[in-house]
Amino acid sequence: MQDVARLAKVSVGSVSRVLNGRENVAPAIQEAVRAAVAELNFVPNVVARSMRKGSSSAIGCLISDITQHTAAQMVSAAEERLRARGFEILIANSHYDLERERAILSSLKQRRIDGFIGAISDDETPSYFNFLHTLNMPVVLWERDAQGEFNSVLTDHADGCRQAVRYLASLGHRSIALVAGHENTWVGREMVRGYQAACEAAGIALDPALVLRTSAFNKDVCRALLTGPGRPTAIIATLNDVAVVLEVVRETGLSIPADLSVISIGEHEYSGIASPALTVVTQNPRDVGREAADMMLQLIEGSAPSGIRRSKHPMRMIVRESCGAPPSLARRKKR
Amino acid sequence: MQDVARLAKVSVGSVSRVLNGRENVAPAIQEAVRAAVAELNFVPNVVARSMRKGSSSAIGCLISDITQHTAAQMVSAAEERLRARGFEILIANSHYDLERERAILSSLKQRRIDGFIGAISDDETPSYFNFLHTLNMPVVLWERDAQGEFNSVLTDHADGCRQAVRYLASLGHRSIALVAGHENTWVGREMVRGYQAACEAAGIALDPALVLRTSAFNKDVCRALLTGPGRPTAIIATLNDVAVVLEVVRETGLSIPADLSVISIGEHEYSGIASPALTVVTQNPRDVGREAADMMLQLIEGSAPSGIRRSKHPMRMIVRESCGAPPSLARRKKR
Repeated sequence: MQDVARLAKVSVGSVSRVLNGRENVAPAIQEAVRAAVAELNFVPNVVARSMRKGSSSAIGCLISDITQHTAAQMVSAAEERLRARGFEILIANSHYDLERERAILSSLKQRRIDGFIGAISDDETPSYFNFLHTLNMPVVLWERDAQGEFNSVLTDHADGCRQAVRYLASLGHRSIALVAGHENTWVGREMVRGYQAACEAAGIALDPALVLRTSAFNKDVCRALLTGPGRPTAIIATLNDVAVVLEVVRETGLSIPADLSVISIGEHEYSGIASPALTVVTQNPRDVGREAADMMLQLIEGSAPSGIRRSKHPMRMIVRESCGAPPSLARRKKR
Repeated sequence: MQDVARLAKVSVGSVSRVLNGRENVAPAIQEAVRAAVAELNFVPNVVARSMRKGSSSAIGCLISDITQHTAAQMVSAAEERLRARGFEILIANSHYDLERERAILSSLKQRRIDGFIGAISDDETPSYFNFLHTLNMPVVLWERDAQGEFNSVLTDHADGCRQAVRYLASLGHRSIALVAGHENTWVGREMVRGYQAACEAAGIALDPALVLRTSAFNKDVCRALLTGPGRPTAIIATLNDVAVVLEVVRETGLSIPADLSVISIGEHEYSGIASPALTVVTQNPRDVGREAADMMLQLIEGSAPSGIRRSKHPMRMIVRESCGAPPSLARRKKR
């Protein structure tokens, strides 16, 4: 700070006042101090202080996409918990790109984070877990099956889809489409598993054409599905994909639930006020986020119980107005 | 890597295979390598490589809250742009907490980010700009008025509210509530300014009780407003606050637009499919994000035109079904 004062030709007190953001400093002095700080590449007090403390603590958080409401809720809840214990959280998006994800994790490691929470893009490839191990820091996965390699916090997506199919089958549906989560991830795998099990239990023949993936789902695909010859009478999809479905339904003049029953996996504030109000299977992303944060804190503080933990959160159906009996065969042929 | 091999009692080739995530490695060897990596606190290849390159480049991104859809859109668009040029983006939430924000920015600085984009919690206090200057890195603000101190990309929120009030006044409304953005920020300030200007232009007397702030807006406040004696016939609010309004409207049995006209500032996929479909004033968060990213890239690459830049994006009204004529005085008295 003395070097800054010397170069700026002001007192050390003035430097301090500028660096601490005091208001009563003449503009010329502010300018001189800033110039000196820049020239000397000076690390100001507040930064130096946390550097001296050794670790300004931060947890890296990897999600697929910040614009996904459910993921944002998890992050937000985890952050609340970690903040209370003095940890910042630094968030990065992988967009299901493994190459990118490796770069992000390496970058976070290099930036000396204390641990990493989040959803990797692939939880089926053992070699990828090896990569995570070599990062050599505490890891907690959410919505990914860590296969006994790391702690994980999951949502029971198989049961969620089971509940949805069972309900639709009870209304008489035999042709139910599913837009499942991503390949190579817990969410996608479990959604398909639960859907298939419930279809079989209800005596519904499995039609591969009715099982779609979010990674290949868009308005065109949806329009083809809903207006084609083998069109389903019901569809189950996650929040973002339901928005696509509703848009296509509007455009094509279909009616919910008369022509198509819709169930959303996950919800936000607007699901209940959509027209018609959406029947949903809700998860508890905030619970998942909180538990993952707690696991991380225990790992960092050395208070974790021994062994790898794997926690699974339930899903719950909320029936509103977007499901009904399937259109009669006659009516469907007439269209 | 030789140290790791020695400690693990395996060949350097085996270490390399484990660190690079190859599949054909015996579990016992994987285990030994991992243990040695941990004991030596070894920095694996992929990390070391990016460290040798000098900078694994990253831009810090400060937003108020990841669960805000509009902010998430800005981040997402900025990220796309920065990624294409080899920059990761690390996101942190300030929750309008200045103390926390200072800690975050210091933490990011300490983690050697190359620049910082985002929304600070207070753009009215000059001393806070001084703090930003002392971080001594490229800064671009979005949705905050940098007062000539930094580049900034803004949305014309004053005009947005002007459009909303003008439209409501044309329908006959004289009692229009506003839930404005945060105090001490461009968004909040400009919303109020545009609202007041348009009220005055329409000859509507300003009623301070009708100007609320998002920071103090919740279901209780909203219920009191919409059921109290001086209740407005219309309300203008941002996306998240509109969700609160719609919830209270449902609970209290009010009808939109018969009892209350609603305009949402900003929108997401569900705004148009709410019941009734929401009339909105849209911004272009993705354009804002992209431009901020471009400004940052120019600053980092030294290709920025001289001088501080300040860009302002327009807002646009989309009329749907949530606004109508105000309830007649007679009808209101009867309720």
